Amino acid sequence: MTNNPDRPLHLRIALENDIAIGPGKADLLEGIRDTGSIAAAGRQMGMSYKRAWSLIEAMNTAFSQPVIETARGGSARGGARLTPTGETVLATYRHMMRAAESAIAPDVEILQSLLDPDQRKRENFD
Amino acid sequence: MTNNPDRPLHLRIALENDIAIGPGKADLLEGIRDTGSIAAAGRQMGMSYKRAWSLIEAMNTAFSQPVIETARGGSARGGARLTPTGETVLATYRHMMRAAESAIAPDVEILQSLLDPDQRKRENFD
Repeated sequence: MTNNPDRPLHLRIALENDIAIGPGKADLLEGIRDTGSIAAAGRQMGMSYKRAWSLIEAMNTAFSQPVIETARGGSARGGARLTPTGETVLATYRHMMRAAESAIAPDVEILQSLLDPDQRKRENFD
Repeated sequence: MTNNPDRPLHLRIALENDIAIGPGKADLLEGIRDTGSIAAAGRQMGMSYKRAWSLIEAMNTAFSQPVIETARGGSARGGARLTPTGETVLATYRHMMRAAESAIAPDVEILQSLLDPDQRKRENFD
């Protein structure tokens, strides 16, 4: 797994019903909200349509209500938008991230302070 | 990645120096503290000695001080203990987990409340 420097915290929460919500599902929901399409949302994450759909299906199965709705009569691969449940899942995950980031900030400071400053300097000049 | 039901939160933090601390490195440090051996700590996690050593080496490189010290003249695969830096990294990660768990508890409640209760029941009776 690669570390995204813009997102130092990677947080995944396992819920009941054998479902976990992490950055992948959250980004996918956000992409669908922004593009109106499962295929386009997957594409901008470098994810196959099949993979994107399987993540959506896992959420649709686990939650009482589906997380997205697709346009009737539309292309099978287009016309998707978040349901109220999908919006809530996304907003709750984003809020959770911010809450966790604030809560762990002092500990992150401690860990950063233990890092080798020489190595840090070297990285910056590479 | 599997979900450990006893540990619903999976938290990994990327620091500078291209190092990330997550449950794997934390558990490994704890195992070394408890067993006094890299090999034994790796074994109880189902991790090869090579893999365990590479995680330790990544930490030893990134931090100013090594995270473990090995006994002089002892077996190459035995006699390891945490340094003060190793103890601090472990304790800070554990504290970070508890702080994040508390901070996200209300959001976890919201997500749990959206789950399909029928499916939850089914899982429980399987």
